[in-house]
Amino acid sequence: MHRVRFRDPDGELRTGEWLADEATISANAGPTSRVAFPDDTFSPEEVDVLAPAEPTKIVCVGLNYEDHAAEQGKDLPDRPLLFLKGPNTVASHEQTVELLAEKERIEYEAELGVVIGRECRHVDQADAMDVVAGFTCVNDLSNRDDQRIEQNWVRGKAFDGAAPMGPVLATPDEVPDDATIELRLNGETKQRSSREKFIFSVPELIAEITTYMTLEPGDVISTGTPAGVGPLADGDEVEVEIEGIGTLSHSVTIP
Amino acid sequence: MHRVRFRDPDGELRTGEWLADEATISANAGPTSRVAFPDDTFSPEEVDVLAPAEPTKIVCVGLNYEDHAAEQGKDLPDRPLLFLKGPNTVASHEQTVELLAEKERIEYEAELGVVIGRECRHVDQADAMDVVAGFTCVNDLSNRDDQRIEQNWVRGKAFDGAAPMGPVLATPDEVPDDATIELRLNGETKQRSSREKFIFSVPELIAEITTYMTLEPGDVISTGTPAGVGPLADGDEVEVEIEGIGTLSHSVTIP
Repeated sequence: MHRVRFRDPDGELRTGEWLADEATISANAGPTSRVAFPDDTFSPEEVDVLAPAEPTKIVCVGLNYEDHAAEQGKDLPDRPLLFLKGPNTVASHEQTVELLAEKERIEYEAELGVVIGRECRHVDQADAMDVVAGFTCVNDLSNRDDQRIEQNWVRGKAFDGAAPMGPVLATPDEVPDDATIELRLNGETKQRSSREKFIFSVPELIAEITTYMTLEPGDVISTGTPAGVGPLADGDEVEVEIEGIGTLSHSVTIP
Repeated sequence: MHRVRFRDPDGELRTGEWLADEATISANAGPTSRVAFPDDTFSPEEVDVLAPAEPTKIVCVGLNYEDHAAEQGKDLPDRPLLFLKGPNTVASHEQTVELLAEKERIEYEAELGVVIGRECRHVDQADAMDVVAGFTCVNDLSNRDDQRIEQNWVRGKAFDGAAPMGPVLATPDEVPDDATIELRLNGETKQRSSREKFIFSVPELIAEITTYMTLEPGDVISTGTPAGVGPLADGDEVEVEIEGIGTLSHSVTIP
């Protein structure tokens, strides 16, 4: 199932299912609404698709594909390299993300996002998929000007809008173990890899992160990017497509 | 004014004023409650004092006192060193914080916390105090085992309970520019300095941080620690006292 959060044409926050033909959203009267709506149907064009989760935190993973580690000139890590993005970084499908002014190099990074379904701490790898609500597409926008000169990647990774995600939350059964992940910049393929190429699997990541912190429903683990990262320019159009999820599209503007 | 969030003896979430003699909490029917309470009065002993803010993120500052930079063998920074703690790190006054198991060295760091009062981005230094709701005491608990070997201090700084804060939110008029900040471990003074010793002032920090990200009401900036940091042991009692705010007390346990 492909779950979607959206604002309907009357501006009401709703949830529903984005049906398999990708042409219809079947809305239900979800718990996010104070109104008992009828079961309406919309075309995606007539609604504002929202980010599929409202994370209290996004736990990101660096260097989780061998080819990207090589591209960055880094050794393979012996445990996941973690960093944080706050809720201010969330941006949604079809949003124009205003990047930081006066930076030389802000880059795209296509990633598989894991959306947590229930509060959890100290999760064993064997039980890890029990806490996963589903998967989404994430673009881990990265301000290299600051990232390369700061210890913690706050200016580099946690600026407003630095985590476009969506368009849907796909339940785990929808996404194959070897799902293809691809990023297109203005229609041209720049990154293309597979979830098979992860250094650390989703259960390994969940077990490691919850050794240290509680994950809440809606929290997102962004699982790292493959090779092919590169810079963004004003007006660029980005698509992150993951097999079994769909395509996150957004543009960027530089003030 | 010293504002306090607490649970009353019936378990209801309430807000109020901790009166100057520190012996009485005067509760009001605040916006956090669904019930129009009468204006009750409690003694602090009969309520559970909660953290004075519910941050969406805590933006922390490293090396903001010259003496602590020297103690850590670091050069003075030319701009604030920033790192993030998520909402999972919040702990409250009188809480027993369960630290991480099997770590050699988890340390205390007494800090002045700035609580943000309204949503803001791109704040000029001259206007920065307009977005400040007040100040509180923070203990920036730090797991050195992991901090010293990771790029981003996630395991090191963002574990559950790593930011005890409280007991109150003191309005800015209560806290002098040269307010004393002191940490006592089991009654013995370990850190003692003054807000005068900051490398970067509160307005400088707010201007720098909001260049990159929106701050939300309840977000906290933790302004760095002076010299004298040191390790915690099972059962230790910590007090962080800041002139004009009061004393945050908490204990720690190691599982």
